[in-house]
Amino acid sequence: MSAHSEAATDHASVANQMTGADSLELRELYSDFESEHLVPLWTQLGDLMPMHPAPRAVPHVWRWSALHPLARRAGDLVPVGRGGERRAIALANPGLSGHAYATPTLWAAIQYLGPKETAPEHRHAQNAFRFVVEGEGVWTVVDGDPVRMSRGDFLLTPGWHFHGHHNETDSPMAWLDGLDIPFAHYADSGFFEFGADRVTDESTPDYSRSERLWCHPGLRPLSGLRDTVSSPIAAYRWEHTDAALSQQLLLEDEGRPATVEQGHAAVRYVNPTTGGDVMPTLRAQFHRLRAGTALATRREVGSSVFQVFEGRGQVVLDGTEHELAKGDLFVVPSWAAWSLRAEGQFDLFRFSDAPIMERLHLNRVHVEGEQR
Amino acid sequence: MSAHSEAATDHASVANQMTGADSLELRELYSDFESEHLVPLWTQLGDLMPMHPAPRAVPHVWRWSALHPLARRAGDLVPVGRGGERRAIALANPGLSGHAYATPTLWAAIQYLGPKETAPEHRHAQNAFRFVVEGEGVWTVVDGDPVRMSRGDFLLTPGWHFHGHHNETDSPMAWLDGLDIPFAHYADSGFFEFGADRVTDESTPDYSRSERLWCHPGLRPLSGLRDTVSSPIAAYRWEHTDAALSQQLLLEDEGRPATVEQGHAAVRYVNPTTGGDVMPTLRAQFHRLRAGTALATRREVGSSVFQVFEGRGQVVLDGTEHELAKGDLFVVPSWAAWSLRAEGQFDLFRFSDAPIMERLHLNRVHVEGEQR
Amino acid sequence: MSAHSEAATDHASVANQMTGADSLELRELYSDFESEHLVPLWTQLGDLMPMHPAPRAVPHVWRWSALHPLARRAGDLVPVGRGGERRAIALANPGLSGHAYATPTLWAAIQYLGPKETAPEHRHAQNAFRFVVEGEGVWTVVDGDPVRMSRGDFLLTPGWHFHGHHNETDSPMAWLDGLDIPFAHYADSGFFEFGADRVTDESTPDYSRSERLWCHPGLRPLSGLRDTVSSPIAAYRWEHTDAALSQQLLLEDEGRPATVEQGHAAVRYVNPTTGGDVMPTLRAQFHRLRAGTALATRREVGSSVFQVFEGRGQVVLDGTEHELAKGDLFVVPSWAAWSLRAEGQFDLFRFSDAPIMERLHLNRVHVEGEQR
Amino acid sequence: MSAHSEAATDHASVANQMTGADSLELRELYSDFESEHLVPLWTQLGDLMPMHPAPRAVPHVWRWSALHPLARRAGDLVPVGRGGERRAIALANPGLSGHAYATPTLWAAIQYLGPKETAPEHRHAQNAFRFVVEGEGVWTVVDGDPVRMSRGDFLLTPGWHFHGHHNETDSPMAWLDGLDIPFAHYADSGFFEFGADRVTDESTPDYSRSERLWCHPGLRPLSGLRDTVSSPIAAYRWEHTDAALSQQLLLEDEGRPATVEQGHAAVRYVNPTTGGDVMPTLRAQFHRLRAGTALATRREVGSSVFQVFEGRGQVVLDGTEHELAKGDLFVVPSWAAWSLRAEGQFDLFRFSDAPIMERLHLNRVHVEGEQR
Repeated sequence: MSAHSEAATDHASVANQMTGADSLELRELYSDFESEHLVPLWTQLGDLMPMHPAPRAVPHVWRWSALHPLARRAGDLVPVGRGGERRAIALANPGLSGHAYATPTLWAAIQYLGPKETAPEHRHAQNAFRFVVEGEGVWTVVDGDPVRMSRGDFLLTPGWHFHGHHNETDSPMAWLDGLDIPFAHYADSGFFEFGADRVTDESTPDYSRSERLWCHPGLRPLSGLRDTVSSPIAAYRWEHTDAALSQQLLLEDEGRPATVEQGHAAVRYVNPTTGGDVMPTLRAQFHRLRAGTALATRREVGSSVFQVFEGRGQVVLDGTEHELAKGDLFVVPSWAAWSLRAEGQFDLFRFSDAPIMERLHLNRVHVEGEQR
Repeated sequence: MSAHSEAATDHASVANQMTGADSLELRELYSDFESEHLVPLWTQLGDLMPMHPAPRAVPHVWRWSALHPLARRAGDLVPVGRGGERRAIALANPGLSGHAYATPTLWAAIQYLGPKETAPEHRHAQNAFRFVVEGEGVWTVVDGDPVRMSRGDFLLTPGWHFHGHHNETDSPMAWLDGLDIPFAHYADSGFFEFGADRVTDESTPDYSRSERLWCHPGLRPLSGLRDTVSSPIAAYRWEHTDAALSQQLLLEDEGRPATVEQGHAAVRYVNPTTGGDVMPTLRAQFHRLRAGTALATRREVGSSVFQVFEGRGQVVLDGTEHELAKGDLFVVPSWAAWSLRAEGQFDLFRFSDAPIMERLHLNRVHVEGEQR
Repeated sequence: MSAHSEAATDHASVANQMTGADSLELRELYSDFESEHLVPLWTQLGDLMPMHPAPRAVPHVWRWSALHPLARRAGDLVPVGRGGERRAIALANPGLSGHAYATPTLWAAIQYLGPKETAPEHRHAQNAFRFVVEGEGVWTVVDGDPVRMSRGDFLLTPGWHFHGHHNETDSPMAWLDGLDIPFAHYADSGFFEFGADRVTDESTPDYSRSERLWCHPGLRPLSGLRDTVSSPIAAYRWEHTDAALSQQLLLEDEGRPATVEQGHAAVRYVNPTTGGDVMPTLRAQFHRLRAGTALATRREVGSSVFQVFEGRGQVVLDGTEHELAKGDLFVVPSWAAWSLRAEGQFDLFRFSDAPIMERLHLNRVHVEGEQR
Repeated sequence: MSAHSEAATDHASVANQMTGADSLELRELYSDFESEHLVPLWTQLGDLMPMHPAPRAVPHVWRWSALHPLARRAGDLVPVGRGGERRAIALANPGLSGHAYATPTLWAAIQYLGPKETAPEHRHAQNAFRFVVEGEGVWTVVDGDPVRMSRGDFLLTPGWHFHGHHNETDSPMAWLDGLDIPFAHYADSGFFEFGADRVTDESTPDYSRSERLWCHPGLRPLSGLRDTVSSPIAAYRWEHTDAALSQQLLLEDEGRPATVEQGHAAVRYVNPTTGGDVMPTLRAQFHRLRAGTALATRREVGSSVFQVFEGRGQVVLDGTEHELAKGDLFVVPSWAAWSLRAEGQFDLFRFSDAPIMERLHLNRVHVEGEQR
């Protein structure tokens, strides 16, 4: 029995006695409710207000070994360009009725760009990022700033920034797109605008102007003293992420506090103007587990998508164990129990809707073995 | 043609040429996507990411003259108590497939308590308030603090506060309940817990302890210096709301800046510890229009529910005019065009999901005749 | 031995051995330092960096019975008007070398306005308030808004607001002025500008426009949604302060948490747009002690000025007890030990530089008998 | 005539007529004021509340060529160790009566540590930093974390962190110490505590643990999610500062917005947990001017100390021009007019009390040629 129906039962057990035998008058009343576009609370309280979150979204794993070939086939069959805009193939949570939603709030897709192809420029209120699990040779141009995309990089396209991509090589490239599309669709907050058919700057610099201005640790340009809603950094490079995680584990070896818990190094990508999340609806983190590390089982309000970057291990999702290999993606719905185990060193990228939950004070965490 | 399908068209006009003739190979690809729980973006971009918000929720008006008799019939037929918990009848937006949702984020219901009845105590993570359009004689007990409910009062039950209601009179009483139930259901953030079967304090004081501690303008008790997520004030009394609105109009008469726009006085209910909204997901305001005042037409990201408190007038919702009388309720979906006109002095209560939109930086407003 | 010299000793005991016998070369070095405008740290560390705050300002009590007659004599001899601007007589802390400073940061003065007199308009960057221990009949005009001054009222003139006063009666009136003049002088942050010779609005309304707009508990005008650095409320009325304090004691009688500690009710005057202090450099509070209440002895970083509003009691300042009666003023320098005892009900107004200390994270408190 | 006496005059011209002829009665009144520790405002308004800031501190330049030899002599004559604690020689502003204050709020000193010497550990509430204009070989140990000090580095010792220094080489080393000692002395907010006589960790790592944890651009360790009052970064390395400034000038060459104004690159050292200043009372910045650049003349509320790091140029302080060479220090008092001119590339370190002014909303800037 799912968490959902359990929760419903908690209510139902007591509610049944009351609504057991619907009289004719009651049926008439319910019918009159319906004509007036009204719904009684008492018949559906258990579904509407469960004892704890009872998501329709389910835990699920998508295999990179299945995804990537499908993306390649799409590359052969489907052109990229104005109108379709992007060759992106989205994870559709099996619990969410075929919608292109990884979770109720999060969109996760593999985007595929063939040799010499260009994805035209547009902008939208939805916040977006890319994470590169393999490959190189594509530049994404964000508000006119060309940004190299390479393995391990985390790249931002905050809401209402124009952006297009172009592949400079003779090889295709695929990467992970993360957006708040489902949330914006739900909240009816999306706006969209077409931009240039080609990217506005076809140069291929090693580092974007945003990095040259902002990626000096602890230093803020005087020309950038106004805080921004989203991070002004367009690219968070793998070399920095890797170094940060390595240092945490070295410090742990030296007996210093540096890791989240024993064997578990982690960083959050942040907006340097505030120290907070990179975008107002999306959190992104990178986790590294030492070989043999097993995390405590957690439940959190809010949902996440993980992608394995390197290494092998297992995830246990609501009691079911899944093997994980490079590129594999999995979702953790709200309040689902999850834990990770690492065989060798195990590197994972994670993004979530935690900023939504925290800014609205909806966040709760339960860690097994800790006092709630 | 609805805003929604228009928006879709903006994309489709260019997308058609690409996806026009689906080959066999493409159909196989799409079928393989489906088996792998994947959905392509390019076939549904227009729906997913419209040019501007294209809500499924529609503008709609509910008549107090129809609602109240139905609530009375429910009072005769349906007991209130443990399990069903509340005799609340919710507005179901005609665009939202029979769900008990006024808008995607907001719940609005008429709650009805018969003579001498008690609604038992419980608590939930969902934020709640009551607004009283008529009647008196009920006390709501919030975390043990008995709060009188009278006409014009706005009463808070922030998330995770225990609360129950009891009617001390021989007359029934009905009022408006507002909650973020749809949002919590969507975000999978709800928790629920049963409390006492009777209210924990059956006394009937004129003023709650929260008011006695907090309702002194510009003064903060030293015992309450820690900011709270939600307002510590359990009841915002009509006498204060009425006085504030009257003073704004008097100041306007004296040629002083005080109103939002000519003839339009308005107050926001706030958390005195921060000056911000009363609860993290819900905004509440009260508007008073002078006789003859017509507001400019606005579109806003985010949705609202209004209830007429007193007076007569019209609302124009996406071009359609509706007559309004005391107690009538209407919803304004995201980005729907709305304006109000007052016949005599026209008083309206309003609540919305604006804190969600603002905290996540999704808010936009368009006022007709102003530069966007 | 004062706290100051004690602290110095802590350093000196170890420093002496080093600097004991100054050689000729050392004397030459010190002389060369002086010519180059240099000072060595090691000879004055104990004074510069004591073990705990060792203020030059001393605890002191000023008697209303002495102050008021002097103010009246000034009223007879010294005209008020352009140039001298105000007939204000300032407390000069005996430890601060004759400067007109109650403490290093705070100015406190008795201001006296004769029958039908006007103090002309000016403005300054310094923040100011008035507190009325007795009398009525004067209106202060703040940025054109006439504000009645009556017994028990607390009135604001935040930095850079034009203000003048006029006495409408045939009796003189005296009140307490509080400003951050010493701090602004120290920080070299003051600006000053002359305004109208007469007040710009000679009307005498019961309530200022600011109160009519802002003094409705929990309600914020929609025309005032932008947060302001200082409170938009020009007058905090005695009727509200008195009611708030009374309610706290009544709630305490009912066994409810409401007071700061047993028998000690207190409110802070706040900016309703933020819930924070009324002005960025000044905190103001009102304290009411039940008959017989004795407060625990406290030390705080930062300095305060108290004025007795009503009742009798004692203050113990660094171990010395002083009798207090209506109108008496006393200062508590930083880290001085203080406590209060009430004979009958004992009402005191207090202001301090706490916002400076808190915003710069310099605040510390030590309460006798509590863990530090 | 100084700004100060001008300002006084603005008041005096009108005040004179009133206080011109002090009668016997008036003299008696003033004498009675004095016995009661009272001071009238009207006789000193011009000094107390000038038309604009009229600081006692004066602009002044200290020459490295004079400072450094004096420090060396102190090294020969004065031991460093417990009691004297530090061999630090402070700039004493000629306007501040021989106090060891560079400005009313800021302390600036040259600290000198001989070969193999150790400055013992202590901590104080005062915030401190070091800036290294030349040399290497000293480690400062901050709360047990050894931090290498090398040319161009900016090193933090926030309030209440234990710290000591040890020189591992056979050469002496001198550097700039910056603290808020004068402010803490003024505000009576200082606390002091002795620590270990030797440093607690004598190792000499290239990078401190704080850098290894925090100096990865845009990345925040998950073990460090709690915002801190002061920056957790102990050392801001020259390599990063230099790179950031170089990139700003390169971007300017490419026609991109990156510099503060034409030819003027600048960075602020920040707390990565907030994006704000490194410590609550002190701001630190580094400025690089292209050869030939001349800055607009500015006046600011609050005071600064500059040190030339490299290059030659001039500063104009209240109209007087001073030549500047490597290591030279100068102070800019509040509201003094200042501008800089660069001969070759000109690098300057700057620190100021701007966080005090901004957090208390006292900040104002006037740039010549701009609308105020």
